[in-house]
Amino acid sequence: MTEDELIERFFAASTLHRDDVVLGIGDDAAVLAPPPGHQIVSAVDTINEGVHFPAGLPARSIGHRAMAVNLSDLAAMGAEPAWALLSLSIPQADEKWLNEFADGFLGLATGFGVSLVGGDTVRGPLSVSVGVQGFVESGSQLTRAGARPGDAIFLTGKTGEAAAGLELVRGSRTGPLVDRFLDPVPRVEIGRDLVGVATSAIDVSDGLAVDLARLAKASGVAAHLDLDRLPLSEDVDQLFGPERCRELALAGGDDYELCFTVPPSRKEAVRGIEQRRTVPMTCIGEVRTGCGLLLEGKGASAGVPDAWHHFSAVPA
Amino acid sequence: MTEDELIERFFAASTLHRDDVVLGIGDDAAVLAPPPGHQIVSAVDTINEGVHFPAGLPARSIGHRAMAVNLSDLAAMGAEPAWALLSLSIPQADEKWLNEFADGFLGLATGFGVSLVGGDTVRGPLSVSVGVQGFVESGSQLTRAGARPGDAIFLTGKTGEAAAGLELVRGSRTGPLVDRFLDPVPRVEIGRDLVGVATSAIDVSDGLAVDLARLAKASGVAAHLDLDRLPLSEDVDQLFGPERCRELALAGGDDYELCFTVPPSRKEAVRGIEQRRTVPMTCIGEVRTGCGLLLEGKGASAGVPDAWHHFSAVPA
Repeated sequence: MTEDELIERFFAASTLHRDDVVLGIGDDAAVLAPPPGHQIVSAVDTINEGVHFPAGLPARSIGHRAMAVNLSDLAAMGAEPAWALLSLSIPQADEKWLNEFADGFLGLATGFGVSLVGGDTVRGPLSVSVGVQGFVESGSQLTRAGARPGDAIFLTGKTGEAAAGLELVRGSRTGPLVDRFLDPVPRVEIGRDLVGVATSAIDVSDGLAVDLARLAKASGVAAHLDLDRLPLSEDVDQLFGPERCRELALAGGDDYELCFTVPPSRKEAVRGIEQRRTVPMTCIGEVRTGCGLLLEGKGASAGVPDAWHHFSAVPA
Repeated sequence: MTEDELIERFFAASTLHRDDVVLGIGDDAAVLAPPPGHQIVSAVDTINEGVHFPAGLPARSIGHRAMAVNLSDLAAMGAEPAWALLSLSIPQADEKWLNEFADGFLGLATGFGVSLVGGDTVRGPLSVSVGVQGFVESGSQLTRAGARPGDAIFLTGKTGEAAAGLELVRGSRTGPLVDRFLDPVPRVEIGRDLVGVATSAIDVSDGLAVDLARLAKASGVAAHLDLDRLPLSEDVDQLFGPERCRELALAGGDDYELCFTVPPSRKEAVRGIEQRRTVPMTCIGEVRTGCGLLLEGKGASAGVPDAWHHFSAVPA
């Protein structure tokens, strides 16, 4: 099967139609009409079998994940997602696998209003590279760099469940924690809501400690994280015990929650978003002058356990 | 070395600065300001070691190729390139290799005014996925679909040299044909010049016969290709003999020339571009009513030899 046939057959017909897609799948490139007065927010993320997900994961989950990790990047910028490009490396063209992959990929894309506008399929070890573009009103993007001393640090949902789920997947287990790993939900609507509210934001993909440290570094501030306020998962606590539960909450990756900062005057706005989106938002610490990530509360002296990002980092 | 450090160290500092890059490498996504009155042209292409290029290719050539194949897609649309995203899978972080790769990648990007605005590096088998965005004045893009009966079919340069070069690379040879494979030059300026001149265009990545057939299919016309007019490479003829030379011209991939159609009234405009860009442009046939690719001239009865795209196609 040629590259053209693959893309046409499994993806082109089922993707969302958007009026701003002047020319979609099928030519040398897509032609897209961005809305006036807006800027483009553009991200790319690749997931490799055996690195970002274990071999043998359901095709639907791989497709879902490839789209979710990219939408999560746009969520952290407060952008409205619009277009995606897919580059799919597969060892062979298995029809059932491709149908399921496309279902997972396009299902999530359509749910967030995203149209697949192009891509290619190549022979190779299983690897999915996705580029997404979205919009923000010019100048309104969230970044990692705006946190100011005195800001409160918030976290959507809970961290650690996806990493716990991954451990269960490796043991061929099922259940809600496994779903947290298999079907991450990008916080796109919350990211949009946070425009004009948050001073900075990042998505928690590599682990809360690592990602919050990145935010602090980009903002030139110190992030004080209060471990006593960290929302912990009852499911993880039950299966893995309290110590491992706290470790995973701090250093487990793949949750795709948002971590963001707000001035004290806007805490009420956060409570409004929390109620509207029915996603708990916990104040987990405070921004102060200084630099780096500082842990406070019970267990702080143990420091940050080995971070998730070592798992996918490139060995030197 | 973490992903952040890799991108910062080898790519961020050396990339071109563009005024329309509001936020480049270093956040969850890039923020970009497209020019008013223009549309975005967006493409993605992945090259895998052992599939699109042989193992052991110089890192500089791999970087160059990854950017070139994408710029070639924009060239075929008549777009002005602007921004790129890089997703790099590598088995390990070798400093010398990364420096050379970045040189090849950013060197070509900078030459065409392209800024690297984001990306990620992941652990995995060597694979380079690049997304590029450029602009066209709204509605002015070239596509594969505009060829009309009576149009002349043109080809820039010569095809077959890159495929011949690849055969030589595999035998550890050097020389100008090898350079044609290692350092393809995307026809970006010519693509821009062809806006308002050509009725359709495609870049020759998988082989002239395959790609011209795609153009004919997209336009709903027949492409009559006159083999007697096909420009042949003296270098390939000398090393591989006349028969193989014609086969490679017809079915060899990776040349990244442009194949395009123009109404007879605009042939003079093509000659003007030819002189300005000092790239030969040969009329190799004619568009007629009907469908498919039809070969004419000496050797036409032999048909199209096995096409290059089978090499990278995904096995069923």
